[in-house]
Amino acid sequence: MTAASNVKIRDYWAFTSVTLKRCLQLGPTMAKSKFEYVREFETDDTCLPHCWVVVRLDGRNFHRFSEKHNFAKPNDGRALHLMTKCAQTVMEELEDIAIAYGQSDEYSFVFKRKSNWFKRRASKFMTLVASQFASSFVFYWPDYFEDQPLLYPPGFDGRVVLYPNNQTLKDYLSWRQADCHINNLYNTVFWALVQQSGLTPVQAQERLQGTLAADKNEILFSEFNINYNNEPPVCRKGTVLIWQKVGDVTTKEVKLPAEMEGRKVAVTRTRTKPVPLHCDIIGDAFWKEHPEILDEDS
Amino acid sequence: MTAASNVKIRDYWAFTSVTLKRCLQLGPTMAKSKFEYVREFETDDTCLPHCWVVVRLDGRNFHRFSEKHNFAKPNDGRALHLMTKCAQTVMEELEDIAIAYGQSDEYSFVFKRKSNWFKRRASKFMTLVASQFASSFVFYWPDYFEDQPLLYPPGFDGRVVLYPNNQTLKDYLSWRQADCHINNLYNTVFWALVQQSGLTPVQAQERLQGTLAADKNEILFSEFNINYNNEPPVCRKGTVLIWQKVGDVTTKEVKLPAEMEGRKVAVTRTRTKPVPLHCDIIGDAFWKEHPEILDEDS
Amino acid sequence: MTAASNVKIRDYWAFTSVTLKRCLQLGPTMAKSKFEYVREFETDDTCLPHCWVVVRLDGRNFHRFSEKHNFAKPNDGRALHLMTKCAQTVMEELEDIAIAYGQSDEYSFVFKRKSNWFKRRASKFMTLVASQFASSFVFYWPDYFEDQPLLYPPGFDGRVVLYPNNQTLKDYLSWRQADCHINNLYNTVFWALVQQSGLTPVQAQERLQGTLAADKNEILFSEFNINYNNEPPVCRKGTVLIWQKVGDVTTKEVKLPAEMEGRKVAVTRTRTKPVPLHCDIIGDAFWKEHPEILDEDS
Amino acid sequence: MTAASNVKIRDYWAFTSVTLKRCLQLGPTMAKSKFEYVREFETDDTCLPHCWVVVRLDGRNFHRFSEKHNFAKPNDGRALHLMTKCAQTVMEELEDIAIAYGQSDEYSFVFKRKSNWFKRRASKFMTLVASQFASSFVFYWPDYFEDQPLLYPPGFDGRVVLYPNNQTLKDYLSWRQADCHINNLYNTVFWALVQQSGLTPVQAQERLQGTLAADKNEILFSEFNINYNNEPPVCRKGTVLIWQKVGDVTTKEVKLPAEMEGRKVAVTRTRTKPVPLHCDIIGDAFWKEHPEILDEDS
Repeated sequence: MTAASNVKIRDYWAFTSVTLKRCLQLGPTMAKSKFEYVREFETDDTCLPHCWVVVRLDGRNFHRFSEKHNFAKPNDGRALHLMTKCAQTVMEELEDIAIAYGQSDEYSFVFKRKSNWFKRRASKFMTLVASQFASSFVFYWPDYFEDQPLLYPPGFDGRVVLYPNNQTLKDYLSWRQADCHINNLYNTVFWALVQQSGLTPVQAQERLQGTLAADKNEILFSEFNINYNNEPPVCRKGTVLIWQKVGDVTTKEVKLPAEMEGRKVAVTRTRTKPVPLHCDIIGDAFWKEHPEILDEDS
Repeated sequence: MTAASNVKIRDYWAFTSVTLKRCLQLGPTMAKSKFEYVREFETDDTCLPHCWVVVRLDGRNFHRFSEKHNFAKPNDGRALHLMTKCAQTVMEELEDIAIAYGQSDEYSFVFKRKSNWFKRRASKFMTLVASQFASSFVFYWPDYFEDQPLLYPPGFDGRVVLYPNNQTLKDYLSWRQADCHINNLYNTVFWALVQQSGLTPVQAQERLQGTLAADKNEILFSEFNINYNNEPPVCRKGTVLIWQKVGDVTTKEVKLPAEMEGRKVAVTRTRTKPVPLHCDIIGDAFWKEHPEILDEDS
Repeated sequence: MTAASNVKIRDYWAFTSVTLKRCLQLGPTMAKSKFEYVREFETDDTCLPHCWVVVRLDGRNFHRFSEKHNFAKPNDGRALHLMTKCAQTVMEELEDIAIAYGQSDEYSFVFKRKSNWFKRRASKFMTLVASQFASSFVFYWPDYFEDQPLLYPPGFDGRVVLYPNNQTLKDYLSWRQADCHINNLYNTVFWALVQQSGLTPVQAQERLQGTLAADKNEILFSEFNINYNNEPPVCRKGTVLIWQKVGDVTTKEVKLPAEMEGRKVAVTRTRTKPVPLHCDIIGDAFWKEHPEILDEDS
Repeated sequence: MTAASNVKIRDYWAFTSVTLKRCLQLGPTMAKSKFEYVREFETDDTCLPHCWVVVRLDGRNFHRFSEKHNFAKPNDGRALHLMTKCAQTVMEELEDIAIAYGQSDEYSFVFKRKSNWFKRRASKFMTLVASQFASSFVFYWPDYFEDQPLLYPPGFDGRVVLYPNNQTLKDYLSWRQADCHINNLYNTVFWALVQQSGLTPVQAQERLQGTLAADKNEILFSEFNINYNNEPPVCRKGTVLIWQKVGDVTTKEVKLPAEMEGRKVAVTRTRTKPVPLHCDIIGDAFWKEHPEILDEDS
């Protein structure tokens, strides 16, 4: 934070070790060198090459967090959109993320099969994702929760999982989306029973015990006049983030012929940004429509 | 985030898998089960038992961050105190941290040798430390940088290193404090040359090339009338965080005899809190004074 | 080795732990239980699912071994065939090996992508391959080295490497065969210079320094009348072991009509065995001819 | 095996890669270079420094092996002594083994805490132990089984376990010796009931179900007049191998005064060898008697 700032020292560590080496040879500071051996206890956690690297984050104790911050049940739109804003920030600030998928209080980030970011060290991947997501969560909170101050800074746990080919990666993402569906259907009925029919949570739970998806759809329709398929896609499908070209219309000064000098001109500049979708990713259609995501050579 | 909140479901996963199992037996939702196999790609990253588990965090691109936020050179007190506030939050929110040490834009957290928090999974340790630190950094920023708004949410990378015994752990902490000393001495002279003598950064760097600690002390004293040993300990030694009993005087209603009914009474309650020290931890004195930190049975 | 042999105790460990548990409750042997905790220091080394698992073995100090046992230079046919016999034994005694490739004092064994042998534990794979290969090497030595007694038992080191798809696996095997070619061409010229031209090893080495494959071929042809392409394929290409159906003609007693009673009948039984080939595996032809080797579903 | 043998090329790999690099620059062999990338799939399995590295071997399918080779029940002395001979060979041929312990068909080898053999790579440790043990088993078999030919080459599986300090290492060895005791006591009674009382194995097993150590001792004493404590220590305690000075009397030509010229002289030369003991290693006495084994600086 306080290193000699204008000097062109690209790698702070390189700088440090040069300093250390200088000291080793000479007198009073020599003693310090004897501690350097502790670096050998660091282990190599390089991810197997040519595998998809997935980092999945989960909110820590978000059950309590959602209660303390009065989240709407069964889904709080503000929270879901804040989560997606954080995921977009992660994709833009970090390197080589090909796609992300989120639902409830979790988000998965998929790094490119041939990414060599930080030499594919698993600890770098997961801590940079976790910390960037968490700092963004606090940073962007006021944009989504205008009337609800943030009471304390939340934590997120993360893990790295490797998938050796496209099929296993797609199955991973399908697993998460299937999980979203199952939980959201359950929660939708559960909260209808509680909020609209006045059941206690225990009664609602008992009512749902042993029911199938079809049963739950039926309850929603016959008792609450809810067609589950008309519920918001963000709740039913979660959020997929993929890179897409976005046309920004910006006003910019450009060099113009003499007679037009001094005027400003609207220029359309295309950029690539992480765009949220709420579509099915279990079937083939999504992957056929976006072949570049899994294309090994992109 | 939106799970049935008043129902006593302690483990969200347990709940999910019960739901899943229910679905497996029965018709249309059966298909989902076929994705469950992807969980087998998760690997076990349990830390070797009976070893000290160190998580070290480093600010990502903090060189740029410190410039953008106009940090004072060579040390910015606000930044150092914010870092320590975040580290205290980590110690309080997470479990089993015995001691922490920080300097510049890095902080190391030492989990107890016999901690079984999250079954000693390395990924849990490092992502929860990184995310809690990062969210706290943004959350507490305004308390330390009143006139300087935070421009963007920063990232922190982390790693886990195991030390099998007290000696190697102490040598690890000594290594970090020695690093603090070397860098701070260098930076102190460097910025004196730049800010007070008007050298360019390149000239200052050339002036210091090949100099020893003694040479740098001499430059500081003869040219700038600075006795390096009188520089602030927080800069020279970094910050050690250990658990200490703190007496809080709180005013509390307590049950009193009838004649004193209704009055409030000042009560001294002792709590244990992470307290910052700026002392030497390389020599034996510190460890002799605080034997409980490394005591295997505590 | 001496466990109660006719009793149906399938799992020796299960048996031990039952015994241990019994002891824990009761008196003098209770103390033993306190050591059980050391099992928690064992780590999980499961190989990532759906990846090819390669175990490569190398002879330890085989330079010295070949000298002590008077191996012919540049290639000793007895040694190469013994190595292949050991590799065949490994393939027959262990499970799920799809293909093996050997050259010089090394052999690589490829376990099927979806093998679940010993729950894919890397340490099981590599130690069982190494020990079975080594015990076979001594066991079958006399069949290949009739006049040359084995002077001491040799060692082999092994490692596990994972390849996530067919392309990387084929490239691994190509790498080994390319290595075979380069070394064998060098050694063929080197030993011709030493054995036939009377150069010292140092002179031969100097002569070859900087030469290309074409140069070495030219030396062999013009000075020794050797067409390298006519050298034995086992030396130029190494040995590939694949499973092939082999017709065994065996004489066997079978149930016959009364009038033929007591006679023996020749029966052709087909079995699958590891068969050695000395062909190119770098080009596509081999893999097209044997698609079942890499077929994910076989 | 067939590398240019008199040339001083210490590292075969180094040699290979020099050859390869030479080829990369130049024409027709260039293609080979494209396979080199597969080496990056190898992972680093360095053992944590300053920890005891234990390699434990177990015979594969030794229940069947012992039957096929007519091992005596409950213990076969020839087999136990062959196992120990193999373990001694491992200790002499490999580096840095401080102590070994064996019982039944298993052997554990403990590498020194500060060993840097093969850069502490776990795969090297376990495969070299497993292969050296297995080749020795076949090699020395005829010395112990004169009338019993070896029918097939056996396998051994191995694993690496790290212990961070002396206490955990001693507890590991105690665990194995306690296991030896429990199994041997059981097997001794079991086989007495089968061999001397004519019980079937199932009857013997039922008879022993639920019995404690004291019960088994009582059965042995009252029914078979066996005092378990007088059973051979090798069976009750297993075998500890430690390095001890051994005086070898060798006949050697030494330089002598003129009047004695040409005569040979018996010389006592001391060497250090792995010596078998059958003593208790659970109590403190053994470790106090041999402090050099665990001494960190030896």
